[in-house]
Amino acid sequence: MVEIIKGITAGDLKGIEDILRSSGFFYEFEIETALEIADDTLDRGGYSWLLMKDEDGVVAFANYGKNAFSTHSWDLYWIAVHEKSRHKKLGKELLKAIEDDVKEAGAKILWIETSGRPLYGPTEAFYQRNGYTLQASLKDFYAQGDPKQIYSKVF
Amino acid sequence: MVEIIKGITAGDLKGIEDILRSSGFFYEFEIETALEIADDTLDRGGYSWLLMKDEDGVVAFANYGKNAFSTHSWDLYWIAVHEKSRHKKLGKELLKAIEDDVKEAGAKILWIETSGRPLYGPTEAFYQRNGYTLQASLKDFYAQGDPKQIYSKVF
Repeated sequence: MVEIIKGITAGDLKGIEDILRSSGFFYEFEIETALEIADDTLDRGGYSWLLMKDEDGVVAFANYGKNAFSTHSWDLYWIAVHEKSRHKKLGKELLKAIEDDVKEAGAKILWIETSGRPLYGPTEAFYQRNGYTLQASLKDFYAQGDPKQIYSKVF
Repeated sequence: MVEIIKGITAGDLKGIEDILRSSGFFYEFEIETALEIADDTLDRGGYSWLLMKDEDGVVAFANYGKNAFSTHSWDLYWIAVHEKSRHKKLGKELLKAIEDDVKEAGAKILWIETSGRPLYGPTEAFYQRNGYTLQASLKDFYAQGDPKQIYSKVF
């Protein structure tokens, strides 16, 4: 039984870190950046979080926020599912919950940025499958040969 | 006599705010966001600043930083010249100083985002004149009919 919970507490940090490490996708500095967003949220608020939990604890998480310079754009910063819980459509369910939450808050567009490296091919396919359109590809943004892909969905 | 100074102190905040208000370009929430970056810098560091000062005080400022997710990309967040000091090529000089600073820190690409509204036409022309290329235009990003223009210069 998986439930979706809004917001995080200090007790969730270990579970979030475990998810980030479980995929083997992320660089150490990326994991640290995600955990800094969690620390900032606990300290000062300002980011929205959704957690998926089952009887073992946190199995997926997402964080997102309104873009400070836009009247109606929101940014999805992170969405990740624990490796052991893959292939259960949790990502799709979580993304749907994010969309419902930001729409309720007045969002007209949700933006998602991801790497264009082949490693992220399944990630891009996931966004496309869920109605996101590639709006731009910024050459060599993350590193030489590693472009930033910018996706969006208009509500 | 205008000099370029690296970094800010609490005594510079008023001058920075005056510059932001002098153009009439910026929304109140944009001014607040710029001043929050200044406060964060004074509290915790993390952003780079350059100020241009003459005998009257701060006449131009810029802030920028390394992109946390990239090995070699830097972002220019703000560059602004006081209305009373326009048409003296201070912007060009300041942009050159920023480029020298980030190149020294290992930057390979400097990214600049700006609004595509007609009001910002001269801003876009300024970036183009200084060697920046439009890489993407994100429709309706800031608001309906107000796209985000993404420029970059590769060093």
